[in-house]
Amino acid sequence: MKLEPQAARLQRDLDTLAEIGRDPSGGMTRLALTPEDARARAYVREAMLAQGLSISHDEVGNLIGRRAGKTNLLPCVMTGSHLDSVPRGGRYDGPLGVVGALEALRALDEAGFEGTRPIDLVVFTGEEGSRFPRGTIGSAALSGDIPAESIHALVDKGGVSFRDALIFYGDEGAPRPAAQPKGSVDAFVELHIEQGGVLESKGIDVAAVTTVAGLVQHVVRIVGDSNHAGATPMDLRQDALCAAAEVVLAVEAAARELGAVATVGRIDVEPGAFNIIPGAATLWIDARATTDDTLDRLDLRIRQTIAEVSSRRGLRAEVSARQRVTPGPLDERVISAVERAAAASGLTSLRMPSGAIHDALHMASFCPSGMIFVPSQGGKSHCPEEDTPLPQMLKGVTVLAATLAELAG
Amino acid sequence: MKLEPQAARLQRDLDTLAEIGRDPSGGMTRLALTPEDARARAYVREAMLAQGLSISHDEVGNLIGRRAGKTNLLPCVMTGSHLDSVPRGGRYDGPLGVVGALEALRALDEAGFEGTRPIDLVVFTGEEGSRFPRGTIGSAALSGDIPAESIHALVDKGGVSFRDALIFYGDEGAPRPAAQPKGSVDAFVELHIEQGGVLESKGIDVAAVTTVAGLVQHVVRIVGDSNHAGATPMDLRQDALCAAAEVVLAVEAAARELGAVATVGRIDVEPGAFNIIPGAATLWIDARATTDDTLDRLDLRIRQTIAEVSSRRGLRAEVSARQRVTPGPLDERVISAVERAAAASGLTSLRMPSGAIHDALHMASFCPSGMIFVPSQGGKSHCPEEDTPLPQMLKGVTVLAATLAELAG
Repeated sequence: MKLEPQAARLQRDLDTLAEIGRDPSGGMTRLALTPEDARARAYVREAMLAQGLSISHDEVGNLIGRRAGKTNLLPCVMTGSHLDSVPRGGRYDGPLGVVGALEALRALDEAGFEGTRPIDLVVFTGEEGSRFPRGTIGSAALSGDIPAESIHALVDKGGVSFRDALIFYGDEGAPRPAAQPKGSVDAFVELHIEQGGVLESKGIDVAAVTTVAGLVQHVVRIVGDSNHAGATPMDLRQDALCAAAEVVLAVEAAARELGAVATVGRIDVEPGAFNIIPGAATLWIDARATTDDTLDRLDLRIRQTIAEVSSRRGLRAEVSARQRVTPGPLDERVISAVERAAAASGLTSLRMPSGAIHDALHMASFCPSGMIFVPSQGGKSHCPEEDTPLPQMLKGVTVLAATLAELAG
Repeated sequence: MKLEPQAARLQRDLDTLAEIGRDPSGGMTRLALTPEDARARAYVREAMLAQGLSISHDEVGNLIGRRAGKTNLLPCVMTGSHLDSVPRGGRYDGPLGVVGALEALRALDEAGFEGTRPIDLVVFTGEEGSRFPRGTIGSAALSGDIPAESIHALVDKGGVSFRDALIFYGDEGAPRPAAQPKGSVDAFVELHIEQGGVLESKGIDVAAVTTVAGLVQHVVRIVGDSNHAGATPMDLRQDALCAAAEVVLAVEAAARELGAVATVGRIDVEPGAFNIIPGAATLWIDARATTDDTLDRLDLRIRQTIAEVSSRRGLRAEVSARQRVTPGPLDERVISAVERAAAASGLTSLRMPSGAIHDALHMASFCPSGMIFVPSQGGKSHCPEEDTPLPQMLKGVTVLAATLAELAG
């Protein structure tokens, strides 16, 4: 079977979506359940209808297009991603996994592939968490990880509830329940840009993702004593920034040693003047690991460092745990299917974990799941510079199509 | 001769000044050449007249009250400080050296001290640098370090020039030239709160200040690469905050080793989000030392650290030098006069440098100069919590009076 996804069609779909929510100040701003999100979804819905898929939608706004198989009572194979973006984000984070999957289905049709199982193409609602106060909304509901009622009760910064926003999202007809029955999906696979620089730096075509890393996030406030920068000798100081600097470096060292990643992305210092010793510093720490055990050890190391540094320097520290997400190991059957698909298409592949969170994290708790990464230029994502050359995206679509063919049987 | 400054008079003067410019949000806001500054100055002027001093003022707004000596053609002994404050500053930073000096003159009068030399009490204009873009304005002009024309040309953030602000400052009559003739002042001594915690922590009454430390201030911008905090492995990062943290700790270590002080008082990180690796960090560094040599070595160490860290981590760093102030060694004759005055009054004293900059820094380049410190509670200054118990301030006034008596002969 020769799978030949078409660059021109993929480009047209991606270009069309990139215009919907293009931000005048750069990049894409297409937040969940906004008119822009609804327009992008309507475009994909029409394209799915044109491809002969049968459409349904559920009570949290997930849109599903089904490609029939020879035996439609069998659990389906599912693929898809999301259409919402972060503020001033990139063009391909999400949309590639939606219209790339659509192009994969076109290639399967054109190759005359029938398949035993049906294939469902899903557009997940609200993956980014940029509007409502949580991400991966659609996949959390579909997998049954979060009840639809809890999602309906989410409220955005403007006071609009998820339920009210959904009314204007453009769905017609009665939605199906969000949580799908256990066993109704035989396997899930998501195509996505890597959002890091590993594939690019190694010159590899695609990655078969092994795990979606979990994370812990903490806000740490260190309180010392603010004093005159000239008149206070070094041994009479309780400098909150010096303590914070030790924590920043210890967080980096702990992640290196444990084979994980950890980042202090933000730091605020008070009062923040040239000639005043910082009296307080607040750190935002994000730590990620691919196993529960490593995540726990990383978390412990970070907490121990904070306690040790603040005690040694005579400062107070408060740690507020913001969230913990358990790592989602992906399924060996799907991972190796991706590898075989790449090899069969003459493409190079490697196994790697995903440091970023994706809808596949929730799907992994629901059914055997996998992901395919294509390279990100400069490792950039969540910014206007996010980019992947079209030929590389097309290779990912080819691998997705071949993977779906194997999984659908 | 028995010198008995009166607590009630000192308290009345300090309390009256503390009401002029009291900030509703806490502390004092009495910026240079504002109506509040003019009211404080008018109060002091009336008090000087009541004490029989002859008043003059100069072209940068310095106010001088002269106590006659037996031989008025001799170079005078000068004392004084400033009345302006930082925003939401304390009650005693400056005013103690003005009304404390006035109370010292009262005590000398009451003790029947005549003195060979005249004694000039000076209120220096704009010591804090909180309104116009430089501090120690009055002493820099009086000592001839900065021409009056340069000071007149200073412009505040609201676009008002120093020259225009001076018109509304309330001076009458023709001002004298700001720069006084070399040799016209035989010695200068300034009473001030310590603004640090050394005297308090050692339980000592007063300090004979040996040097006013010099400083270098730098703004350092470190540029790395901002990327996804989850998807970017540790070895592909160029984290600007991690580099900045190394610089913060190296600045601290260098100051400790060289017996100096150095502070990173402010840090800004871009883009500053929980899950994005910092792409840029800006540091504001303030480093101080009591000798030129130590200041140069400290400055060099800081610059070398910035270069080494940014090179090792593959980042770019730009260092903008904001200012360099040369240390001002004080005069042994005045320092030992302060020590003798303390001992004669039954008070304890120690020698220490001033980490903060004062008008005495410029005076030290003009005539033999000294300073007397009294303890600051908790080492606090430039904030509403700035405080010194009245009995401790009174001890400082006693030492000042005895020092002036020795210097005036």
